[in-house]
Amino acid sequence: MNSHPQLDERGKLKHLLSIEGLPPATLIEILDTARSFEQVARQDIKKVPHLQGKSVFNLFFEASTRTRTTFEIAAKRLSADVLNLNVSASSQSKGETLLDTVDNLSAMQADMFVVRHAESGAAHLIARHVGPGIHVINAGDGRHAHPTQALLDMYTIRHFKHRFDHLRVAIVGDVLHSRVARSQIHALTTLGVPEVRVIGPQTLIPRDVERLGVRVFHHMPQGLRDVDVVIMLRLQNERMNGALLPSRDEYFKFYGLTPDKLAHARPDAIVMHPGPMNRGVEIDSEVADGVQSVILQQVTFGIAVRMAVMSILAGKQERLP
Amino acid sequence: MNSHPQLDERGKLKHLLSIEGLPPATLIEILDTARSFEQVARQDIKKVPHLQGKSVFNLFFEASTRTRTTFEIAAKRLSADVLNLNVSASSQSKGETLLDTVDNLSAMQADMFVVRHAESGAAHLIARHVGPGIHVINAGDGRHAHPTQALLDMYTIRHFKHRFDHLRVAIVGDVLHSRVARSQIHALTTLGVPEVRVIGPQTLIPRDVERLGVRVFHHMPQGLRDVDVVIMLRLQNERMNGALLPSRDEYFKFYGLTPDKLAHARPDAIVMHPGPMNRGVEIDSEVADGVQSVILQQVTFGIAVRMAVMSILAGKQERLP
Amino acid sequence: MNSHPQLDERGKLKHLLSIEGLPPATLIEILDTARSFEQVARQDIKKVPHLQGKSVFNLFFEASTRTRTTFEIAAKRLSADVLNLNVSASSQSKGETLLDTVDNLSAMQADMFVVRHAESGAAHLIARHVGPGIHVINAGDGRHAHPTQALLDMYTIRHFKHRFDHLRVAIVGDVLHSRVARSQIHALTTLGVPEVRVIGPQTLIPRDVERLGVRVFHHMPQGLRDVDVVIMLRLQNERMNGALLPSRDEYFKFYGLTPDKLAHARPDAIVMHPGPMNRGVEIDSEVADGVQSVILQQVTFGIAVRMAVMSILAGKQERLP
Repeated sequence: MNSHPQLDERGKLKHLLSIEGLPPATLIEILDTARSFEQVARQDIKKVPHLQGKSVFNLFFEASTRTRTTFEIAAKRLSADVLNLNVSASSQSKGETLLDTVDNLSAMQADMFVVRHAESGAAHLIARHVGPGIHVINAGDGRHAHPTQALLDMYTIRHFKHRFDHLRVAIVGDVLHSRVARSQIHALTTLGVPEVRVIGPQTLIPRDVERLGVRVFHHMPQGLRDVDVVIMLRLQNERMNGALLPSRDEYFKFYGLTPDKLAHARPDAIVMHPGPMNRGVEIDSEVADGVQSVILQQVTFGIAVRMAVMSILAGKQERLP
Repeated sequence: MNSHPQLDERGKLKHLLSIEGLPPATLIEILDTARSFEQVARQDIKKVPHLQGKSVFNLFFEASTRTRTTFEIAAKRLSADVLNLNVSASSQSKGETLLDTVDNLSAMQADMFVVRHAESGAAHLIARHVGPGIHVINAGDGRHAHPTQALLDMYTIRHFKHRFDHLRVAIVGDVLHSRVARSQIHALTTLGVPEVRVIGPQTLIPRDVERLGVRVFHHMPQGLRDVDVVIMLRLQNERMNGALLPSRDEYFKFYGLTPDKLAHARPDAIVMHPGPMNRGVEIDSEVADGVQSVILQQVTFGIAVRMAVMSILAGKQERLP
Repeated sequence: MNSHPQLDERGKLKHLLSIEGLPPATLIEILDTARSFEQVARQDIKKVPHLQGKSVFNLFFEASTRTRTTFEIAAKRLSADVLNLNVSASSQSKGETLLDTVDNLSAMQADMFVVRHAESGAAHLIARHVGPGIHVINAGDGRHAHPTQALLDMYTIRHFKHRFDHLRVAIVGDVLHSRVARSQIHALTTLGVPEVRVIGPQTLIPRDVERLGVRVFHHMPQGLRDVDVVIMLRLQNERMNGALLPSRDEYFKFYGLTPDKLAHARPDAIVMHPGPMNRGVEIDSEVADGVQSVILQQVTFGIAVRMAVMSILAGKQERLP
């Protein structure tokens, strides 16, 4: 019996739950498919029929207008019917279990669930539970994973740097609490990036992170030296005045990306951020709006990447002409 | 002058407000039409053009993500444009009257209103008020009616039991506060079910319910004896610790559907529940997930039934090939 | 360099931010285009392909279900994909700046933003900021402007009175706090209405309003004498018990539109109101529901006018056959 959570017995993607466990070929297939969808967004009619008549449920147990919107646009540009469910405000409060909610929506002949949940593992749980025709995309679960974010980051890196096998990439900030960072590290190492660094204060770097194949730096200028890609992480508001951090200003002083610090990277290094940005906390406006920033391109590529994931899951990934 | 609230002068359905007052032929027409839509959900492209260019307004004065979603899917699979209005959060708070809100939306050339309201009679009030081209579907009003739920229940019963004229059906639980139970009783008796029973504690059974043609049981094993269909009702959370009930555990002991109690029904009896379920309160998980449970099929059939109601109201009920 | 906020170098509308600054020809073009869309709403299939494959973002920083719904319907009848973003509940609370939010959504290849904001000037700010392919419609900003409301009012007036150049129009109520009144005054004077009057208590009339070309009346019967059009303004709930007004009852006595007061206008005068109405505060039900009221027609015309604005901005304004 096939027990891979994300791939079927023929190795085809059936759910996208985490980057961990996916072979390089699957990641590459997503990036290649996304390239064809990137063209769609430039057409006068930004729509293709790949998911026509399919029902995509945005199942958000944790509010995130921005992430929900990117999936909604992606699904609509694929001609799917999109249903937005903010579940915290409904069945869960009526005492129904998570799996009963999922069973119910499945019984409405859902084709795809895009799941956001505060608990790590929620998307896996749902994926194990649903019937064979239903596909699950993890849109962020607790501190665990946010695979489409990592994929759009890889797309962005490949777009600007063309190859992965010669790069130095630094991920900066609150790695400890970041599902984005975890997914990025897995994606970068899977795609063959030879040097992945994480930079942050000791309190925000997981103890055993080296086991993932990364180098740890606490001194930012040192960590940024000669890197090709700088990925900034968002500092969650709730951390800013917590026990793990001295203060917002201190944080900016040591780990905020300023032009000064960026000067230690390669001159053609690109700067990335998953958004929404805290200007003046983890990133200086001069950098965020500077020539090395590719932060808005990430958003654009994110739509194409989500269209690619959805169409591959639906078995409609034929490349566009 | 025609004064029937739901049928026009030629006997055609113009609004669906309650099962009460509808002739058997109308119910049968809805069930037959739903059968053709059940096929649609199994197609690769789950969409038909029946309501293309029509505007369906989900007018929810009371929040219900689940019910709203079923109507939204049904309307979208009929190719309608769907507008979701959570009205408690808008005009009503600005002091506008219910009928002014309805007039306004009607003036936007609405074709159909799906109305959910905490007050009994709200859908009737709206139906009397709107112009001739606009159709109203009651999606639950106070303790009064929830006709599409009853229709999907009838569809489910017919699907599994083929005929109505030889059945014993038991409805179990809080009949007093249940709009679902009221609509089910009317549907069952209209369709010729010879024996309809209601089972529950004295405090949760309406005093004069026998006048609707049902038999009352307070002892559940006795009430379930030899029935073909068991319909469980949801126990509202707010009742659980109220004056009408001793306690949640006591309730489960006497009126929760366990395998033991279900053994009194016919061996081929089906178990139904409108959802969301309170496992361990009105129903045991072993029954909910057991072979006699058709609870999830109810949800699936519910989409087809709502598509049928909408297409009949819109005058587009021709059967599919 | 072209610095007109709303027109491009060839005089074509690129954003709709306020009536102020638009030439009469632009207003007339919108009204003429709306006339063709008014027919669409009467068809069996109320849909045209003008905005197919376009993404319209309803960007509401201030909740307004009604206004959002009118734009959503208009966009859907033009076949656009519509994304609803209630932004107060999302990014803004995460500390992101307004322009970062806009940049992000722009990067998702938005084609049009419909913006509602509590701050005057928000839509202008966004319009100055977005790239050349993106169009902004102001759906109400602070006390400043609400141009589509004014345009639908002009459409209504032209529909019933055919010409503007012989009319007396009175605007009654809280002119001081009303973005609608400001936009109406600009539209009426731009379209050549020879006499525009404002009527209200001294506390609710802006001091220098005569500079806009209007006559001020504090005595309502006198102000209504021989007018062709009476436009009532909504009295905001929060004003009703404030320092600027004696009481709700007093207000109604002096400035509520009753049949008595309306008798001072021309016998064929029409009565308008932007909604939602406060019956018994600024308008008597006998007038609101009376033969001179065109309040619901305003709503219907509003959809056509919004379709016109959107299709003109998208460069797809060819008249329908």
